[in-house]
Amino acid sequence: MAVPTGASTTIILRLEIDKQGITFGQIATAIGDAGGDIVAIDVTRSTKDSTIRDITVNVTDQLHTKRIEEVTRRLPGVKLLNVSDQTFLMHLGGKIEMNPKVPIKNRDDLSRVYTPGVARVCMAIHEEPSRAHSLTIKRNTVAVVSDGSAVLGLGNIGPLGAMPVMEGKAMLFKQFAGVDAFPICLETQDTEEIIRTIKNIAPAFGGINLEDISAPRCFEIEERLVQELDIPVFHDDQHGTAVVLLAGLLNATKLVGKRLEDCKVVLAGVGAAGTACTKILLSAGVRNIIGVDRQGALVAGQDYGNATWNWYGENTNPNREEGKLSDVIEGADIFIGVSGPGVLKVEDVKRMAPDSIVFAMANPTPEISPDEVEGIVRVMATGRSDYPNQINNVLCFPGLFRGMLDCRASRVTEEMKLAAARAIASVVTDEELNESYIVPSVFNQHVAERVREAVLDAAYSSGIARRRDIREPK
Amino acid sequence: MAVPTGASTTIILRLEIDKQGITFGQIATAIGDAGGDIVAIDVTRSTKDSTIRDITVNVTDQLHTKRIEEVTRRLPGVKLLNVSDQTFLMHLGGKIEMNPKVPIKNRDDLSRVYTPGVARVCMAIHEEPSRAHSLTIKRNTVAVVSDGSAVLGLGNIGPLGAMPVMEGKAMLFKQFAGVDAFPICLETQDTEEIIRTIKNIAPAFGGINLEDISAPRCFEIEERLVQELDIPVFHDDQHGTAVVLLAGLLNATKLVGKRLEDCKVVLAGVGAAGTACTKILLSAGVRNIIGVDRQGALVAGQDYGNATWNWYGENTNPNREEGKLSDVIEGADIFIGVSGPGVLKVEDVKRMAPDSIVFAMANPTPEISPDEVEGIVRVMATGRSDYPNQINNVLCFPGLFRGMLDCRASRVTEEMKLAAARAIASVVTDEELNESYIVPSVFNQHVAERVREAVLDAAYSSGIARRRDIREPK
Repeated sequence: MAVPTGASTTIILRLEIDKQGITFGQIATAIGDAGGDIVAIDVTRSTKDSTIRDITVNVTDQLHTKRIEEVTRRLPGVKLLNVSDQTFLMHLGGKIEMNPKVPIKNRDDLSRVYTPGVARVCMAIHEEPSRAHSLTIKRNTVAVVSDGSAVLGLGNIGPLGAMPVMEGKAMLFKQFAGVDAFPICLETQDTEEIIRTIKNIAPAFGGINLEDISAPRCFEIEERLVQELDIPVFHDDQHGTAVVLLAGLLNATKLVGKRLEDCKVVLAGVGAAGTACTKILLSAGVRNIIGVDRQGALVAGQDYGNATWNWYGENTNPNREEGKLSDVIEGADIFIGVSGPGVLKVEDVKRMAPDSIVFAMANPTPEISPDEVEGIVRVMATGRSDYPNQINNVLCFPGLFRGMLDCRASRVTEEMKLAAARAIASVVTDEELNESYIVPSVFNQHVAERVREAVLDAAYSSGIARRRDIREPK
Repeated sequence: MAVPTGASTTIILRLEIDKQGITFGQIATAIGDAGGDIVAIDVTRSTKDSTIRDITVNVTDQLHTKRIEEVTRRLPGVKLLNVSDQTFLMHLGGKIEMNPKVPIKNRDDLSRVYTPGVARVCMAIHEEPSRAHSLTIKRNTVAVVSDGSAVLGLGNIGPLGAMPVMEGKAMLFKQFAGVDAFPICLETQDTEEIIRTIKNIAPAFGGINLEDISAPRCFEIEERLVQELDIPVFHDDQHGTAVVLLAGLLNATKLVGKRLEDCKVVLAGVGAAGTACTKILLSAGVRNIIGVDRQGALVAGQDYGNATWNWYGENTNPNREEGKLSDVIEGADIFIGVSGPGVLKVEDVKRMAPDSIVFAMANPTPEISPDEVEGIVRVMATGRSDYPNQINNVLCFPGLFRGMLDCRASRVTEEMKLAAARAIASVVTDEELNESYIVPSVFNQHVAERVREAVLDAAYSSGIARRRDIREPK
């Protein structure tokens, strides 16, 4: 997968230079001629005959990088050992670290945080296990668990390949909501084995965030863990997407003056995310939603050889509309894409109801490009950061887990997810609301706190919270 | 288990006070009369009728704490909600936290550490999995794994009860050697299940530190994981103890002018730690070592109904000495205790060879008190911090794992353990060496670095290191 590095980037060339064979001036000239701007030089090792230098070079695009690499490789007396860019450099040694909250300065400290003092704390927890929620990291720690089977749009790249994503997610948890998260990447893709492993390591954690696990295994894994663990388990690819989608739709329908309950909704891609999106919309009052997949529109009374699709047909599409996407899109108010690039055509969009709303969330390439339907669609949202209205899970999971940890919720409920969606939507005020601004930016400081408060309210009113009410009196 | 809180400590009383029923002056007087010195007051909540206050009180010993609690409980209009002391307060919310190494300040940062930029890093690892050692936290992260079956001297208190110890260990890893460690406390005590779980979560880690797992399961768990994983697996209760013991014995024998190879050694307590101590001593050249357990001295040709004891009898005690500890201790140069309190008597010590060396390492109460044998034993060591010569595993594990992570060792070897022991011993110079100073303090700044260097040397010379030689040219 070729992902652009962006407009301008910095690369570091590690060169082994034969002191007799070439001068540094000759190397610098060659790099300059190839379009590179040398900004720093570090000598990392030096012997009598050779030297190893890290040359930091500004380049304006990926093509320059390739050219500089080739030129350098051809220089006599120079061996190109490595090329790094800023993205890779930011990953060196990993992106997160574990720190003591207090330093151990002396014997006295040591005897409190470790033996012998720690023994009293251990026994206090042994006598009353719920104390682990206050006396250990369980109070603030979430496991970000993946088996590497469906990482981003990259597919089944395995647990090691998934690590950078899970570490990035841990960064977001901390930065946006102060939640400590730790990546657990599993060396197994067997459903039962995954369930057992997560149950076995659960004691250290106050919540489990499942991530990038392929369907249909993700359904059973989540369902079983919800039943068998007493801490919240949340598959973000399903429910995080669903919550933020609903937030966006609440504001989009408000903007165009329609009631969500009255809208005809067509959803393309009845997989894990598509099913979760549908369920939250049904909970939110949507009545007419039609799912379309490779079989066309799903209807009741069919056996698709797929439990998810069968459930879908039975519980949606009340008018039993049949046919392809281009058939059922007729008169739709809302299109939701959780499928792949190019699934929706301009002609399809033209056949939607007036003031149409299109959420084309396939990543990295949406079902239809916003540029193609400018002026045709009223409200357009994607998963991308380079267009307005990015449907990004980071609007949901930090505040959601913050709230659940704070009240020691035993699980995630439908009410909590609906509350989170409404909270996200509420950050956009009526004055601010417009076609290019239906969801807040991921950097909006208010989102996580607003979501947390909504989740707390939902948890306390449904009895899911296991801690005395910690909310400020209103 | 009653562990003293130390000479002076601070407690915090959380009181719900009926505003009509009592004045704060009356409460303060009562606490003062009971021996408490109020140093701070915080109002945590207040309503019209009542107020909740945290009263911080200095107390000189545990007895005062009890008395103050009782007096407060009896006051009219006062409800004692909670009592905390400094040790418990230091544990609130856990002792470690996960932090991003760099902040995500803007979209540009976000697109590097998370989507879309992270995808290139994921693919680079997918194509060449060994890159996970440089591009993820695997490079610097160790799992501290326990099933809670043998926590300190507290026994089988389960995974939640074990958490404070594992968190404390993670603090020590970071503080003494910059290693990121994460506590994994397992909800199973089944050998196969533990092995499978650790294998399943191994991708995120560069090493596994097993901790407080009871014998004999700990042997098979460690052995199997060593075979089946490509990262170092180290059961600290066994090998950490053994390494530091050997370090102490190297210096103790040097001090008394004996060669370790010539010494008669008697070891009490043939469990996990005792067996590991024996094995490292055999590797270090000891020939005459006799193990004593409930059956008396272990000899060859017996079936003890216990694989460990049978192995022990076959591989030690070359003179086939039989009998009780008090029999075989005759003429011994060295006693090693990894058993329980009171196992060694003063009369036993008197029958040892001149310049006797006693390592009474049972925790928290040694096999014999140093006070009882002052003037009888030449060199005395214990596991306690309140006597000289504390045999503390923290002298070993931080530097050992630092070295192994730095060179990407695939496993721990006997040579690395011996090298670590010699390195710890070497921190005490010939000028410093005396009866009260045979091992460095746990706070000695040089230990971890010295151990690291020794481990690197051993790893590179034995081909266990998987990273190009990173040592400074000498």
